[in-house]
Amino acid sequence: MAENSGNGSRHNYDQESILNIAVDVFNKHGYEATSMGMLAEALGITKSAIYHHVPSKEYLLQLALDRALNRLEAILDDPLASTGPAIDKLRFVLRSATGVLTDQVSFITLLLRVRGNSDMEREALERRRAFNRTISDLVIQAQQDGAIRPDIDSRTTARLLFGMIGSVVDWYRPDGPVDAQKVADDVVAVAFGGVRSE
Amino acid sequence: MAENSGNGSRHNYDQESILNIAVDVFNKHGYEATSMGMLAEALGITKSAIYHHVPSKEYLLQLALDRALNRLEAILDDPLASTGPAIDKLRFVLRSATGVLTDQVSFITLLLRVRGNSDMEREALERRRAFNRTISDLVIQAQQDGAIRPDIDSRTTARLLFGMIGSVVDWYRPDGPVDAQKVADDVVAVAFGGVRSE
Repeated sequence: MAENSGNGSRHNYDQESILNIAVDVFNKHGYEATSMGMLAEALGITKSAIYHHVPSKEYLLQLALDRALNRLEAILDDPLASTGPAIDKLRFVLRSATGVLTDQVSFITLLLRVRGNSDMEREALERRRAFNRTISDLVIQAQQDGAIRPDIDSRTTARLLFGMIGSVVDWYRPDGPVDAQKVADDVVAVAFGGVRSE
Repeated sequence: MAENSGNGSRHNYDQESILNIAVDVFNKHGYEATSMGMLAEALGITKSAIYHHVPSKEYLLQLALDRALNRLEAILDDPLASTGPAIDKLRFVLRSATGVLTDQVSFITLLLRVRGNSDMEREALERRRAFNRTISDLVIQAQQDGAIRPDIDSRTTARLLFGMIGSVVDWYRPDGPVDAQKVADDVVAVAFGGVRSE
């Protein structure tokens, strides 16, 4: 400890550890309400020491939103997202998105709370909307193919799918009793077939 | 205006109008971040004048959460919520809850954001959980009756239903193109039968 007392640091954090802790603090208190002092406290370092690690909370938000969005966008680069009937592509994307949610629950929680209060947040919202549009387009195509029920507007269908998947971050915990693979299976099963018995 | 200038008020607000505007401000800025000064500004009255109308922002939050919860709990008092097979009761409660969401979208949005930061918020959370438990119990009963798919844990099924319904407040707008009755129909149709064609 003595060798670190010069900058007030009691821990050797790498950027990844700092980012994970920061995202938890943002989610707990809200990004706007979080100060660098609060982040330093959560890290157990002094307010001056945190600037040795990160330049600003905006920097951490950018890293966190990029992480979440890059993971979601990577789904669309997979050949399975662009191969075969629209309903199969839709199943693949929904299942994979649920997988990203359970794997990156705190980062996706942060992304879903972004309201567009800065240029950075507006850019993240635009990327999130572009991802959602890809899913909406698959819903429209699958409906035109006759694979999605015709009695509901495709926008409503897409929104209900987003809502169901997005809500997983509210209850899924990596150390909880429900396996992430099973969650993804369940989401696709309920989304496609509903909760009623066959 | 002259007769009102003594207390700085330019409007004759009743408590209902004030409540509606306050809930919108809470939803826009977050309840914690909202001050009585911000509420006064949204109402177009002075900070001292607002205290002629309401004693505190806590008072407004209590009114708003009571409104949302009373409307949800009233669903369970309807005979249809306790008559017939569990799957029918579940359908009635889901459909009615969606109706309350679309009818009271800003109040339910506020309720869904409550995190338990005060005794009042914790009490609201407890009432919300009790309402959700009633739905979860219906899911369990309907699953035991063979009407709900047996391959998914009833807690997961209930959570996906809550998630899909709750997300309606994120996109439904009373002045938007989608009729509230149709939204309730669509939610029940997708929840029970999924998005795939029969």
